[in-house]
Amino acid sequence: MKAYRTLPHALLLGACALLANGAGAASKELPPKASVADIVKASKPSDWRPLDPDNTLYMAMPWGRVVIELAPVFAPNHVKNIKALVRNGYFDGLAIVRVQDNWVVQWGDPKDETPDARPIKGAQATLKAEFTIPMANDKHFVRQRDVDGYAPQVGHSDGFPVGRDPKTGETWLTHCYGMVAVARNNEADSGGGTGLYAVLGPARHLDRNLTVVGRVISGMPELAALPRGPMPMGFYDKPGMNVPIATVKVAADVPEAERSKFEVMRTETATYQAVVEAQRNRGGPFTKYSSGHIDVCAAPIPTREQP
Amino acid sequence: MKAYRTLPHALLLGACALLANGAGAASKELPPKASVADIVKASKPSDWRPLDPDNTLYMAMPWGRVVIELAPVFAPNHVKNIKALVRNGYFDGLAIVRVQDNWVVQWGDPKDETPDARPIKGAQATLKAEFTIPMANDKHFVRQRDVDGYAPQVGHSDGFPVGRDPKTGETWLTHCYGMVAVARNNEADSGGGTGLYAVLGPARHLDRNLTVVGRVISGMPELAALPRGPMPMGFYDKPGMNVPIATVKVAADVPEAERSKFEVMRTETATYQAVVEAQRNRGGPFTKYSSGHIDVCAAPIPTREQP
Repeated sequence: MKAYRTLPHALLLGACALLANGAGAASKELPPKASVADIVKASKPSDWRPLDPDNTLYMAMPWGRVVIELAPVFAPNHVKNIKALVRNGYFDGLAIVRVQDNWVVQWGDPKDETPDARPIKGAQATLKAEFTIPMANDKHFVRQRDVDGYAPQVGHSDGFPVGRDPKTGETWLTHCYGMVAVARNNEADSGGGTGLYAVLGPARHLDRNLTVVGRVISGMPELAALPRGPMPMGFYDKPGMNVPIATVKVAADVPEAERSKFEVMRTETATYQAVVEAQRNRGGPFTKYSSGHIDVCAAPIPTREQP
Repeated sequence: MKAYRTLPHALLLGACALLANGAGAASKELPPKASVADIVKASKPSDWRPLDPDNTLYMAMPWGRVVIELAPVFAPNHVKNIKALVRNGYFDGLAIVRVQDNWVVQWGDPKDETPDARPIKGAQATLKAEFTIPMANDKHFVRQRDVDGYAPQVGHSDGFPVGRDPKTGETWLTHCYGMVAVARNNEADSGGGTGLYAVLGPARHLDRNLTVVGRVISGMPELAALPRGPMPMGFYDKPGMNVPIATVKVAADVPEAERSKFEVMRTETATYQAVVEAQRNRGGPFTKYSSGHIDVCAAPIPTREQP
C-alpha cells in the first residue's frame, strides 16, 4: 500500500512546477516557477466569486450531484427557458441518452419526438438560436493573448471561455471541455433546451453553430467516464443503458443548507492572468520546454468548494 | 424501442454533411458538402495501409483488445525498448494505475520503484529522451495549413499528428487524443517505456517534453471511460481499483489468424487532404457557420477494421 502511494511521485507526469519567462524556449533545465496550484493557494478571497443560486442547476445523478453554472449574458432566452423547464419538472426522471467518445455527453427525453414524449409545460419547445451575442452585451471580457485558429480573439468573461470577432461585433462561448450547450435538429432554431450536452472532446468547430448555455462546475469526471453508446453518434441502444436523472433543480429553489458552495475564480483578476501565464509557460523541474502558448480550452478556470 | 432509434436523427449534433468553400463564412444555409464519412466511403483501397505487425501492440484488457500502433521513426530507441519489454513479458499482469480526468490514462507496474518492483529483463529501465527528432528523419510529413499556437508547422506523417520547427530542424509527435507516450520522472532521461500513458484531454503543452511513441488505434472509448482515480493526478488509491492488463504482445508474435486487421488512411493522399478539408469547412444542413480552421488534434485520422 505504501509503495502504491509513492506512485504519483514515481511516474510524475503533467506535474506542477510552472510559470512565466522563457516563452517557447528549449532549455535543459528551466528554472522553477509558481504553478497553477501555487497561485490558487496564494489567491485572495476577493479573487473568487460564489455561484449565483438563481443561475445554478443541480442535476441529481446516481453517483451524486452535477453542478452547472448557467450563462444568462450569453444565452438569455435559453437560460430563462431552461430554468422554466427545470421548475416545471421537465427533466425529472429523464436520462443521459448519448455518450460519443471524445465528443459529447447528452441528456434529455429518451422518448423525444414520439407520441410518448414528455409534455412541455410553461416553457418553449424551441427558441430562436443564440449562437452569438453583440460584444457590447458582454461587460467582462478579458482577452487572452494566445493565437487561436477558430476566433480572431479569445479570452474569458466572468469564468467562461469566450471567442469574439471585432469585425462582426459578435462574441460567443467556446466549445471547451465541460461547456454545456443546446442540442438541436438541422434547423438553427430547432433547439430550446429540452436536450442538452456537455463537451468531452475537441469541438471548437461547433462554435457559433449551437447555443452554449453554461459550464459543468462539478461532476465532469463522472459524466466523462460513462460508457460510450454503441449506436451511431454514441446513442445508447437499450433503454436500460440510459443513465437516469432523478431531478434537476435551480439552486435557489433548494434550501440553503443543502446547496453546494462552489466558488469560481474571477477571470478579471490579476491572479487569473497569473494562472493562465503559469499554464502557458511552465517552469522546471518537470517541464523541459515551455510551450509559450496555451489554448483557450487548456487555460484552467479554477473552481473550488467552500468547506 | 423504435422511438429510441429515431433519436440520432432527432437530436442531431455534430452531424455529417460537410466540406470546402466559405471558410469562416457565416451563412443562414450553407450548401451541403461531402462529409468525412462520405469521403471515407468513396476512398480507394490504395488510400489505406495495413498496420505493420512488427510495430503493433495488442494489450489484452478485461473488455477486449487495445491496439496500439508504434512510431519507430519518431522514437526509434523507445520503440525498440518497449518491444523488448513486451517480448520479455514485462507488462503481463501489470495494470492501469491512473486515470486523470481530461488528461491521461496511464499503465505500468503498481509496485514501480519499490522493492517488489517487477524486474526488467533484456531491456533498459531508462533511455535518453526522444522528445524530438531531426526533420530529415521524417520522410512522410504533409503540412496542414491551419495556424497552430504550439508549433510553427503542424501536419501528419504516415498516420500520426506532427509538429515541427524549420528553424531548429526538429519534428515531434503531438499530444493529441489517443497518442501514447512514455511516463517519466523529473529527469528528461528517466523514462524508458515501463510506464506509458494515452492522452485523454488537451495536453499539447506537453509536446517536446515527453517521448511520444505511438497511437491507440482501437480501444480508446473503453480506456477513456475508466473511472477517474481519487488520488492526486488521478492515481487509483486501492490496488483493487487497478485495471488488470492480462498480456501485451507484439502483433507479429500472434498467429496471423488471431491478428486484428486494422487499416489507417494514408495521410499523404489527396483523399486524406479532402478529409481534413471536410472537417475544416463543413457544409449544411446542420452546420450554419463553417469554422475555416481545424486543430491538428481535431483532424480525424480514419482507421477501419477489415472484415
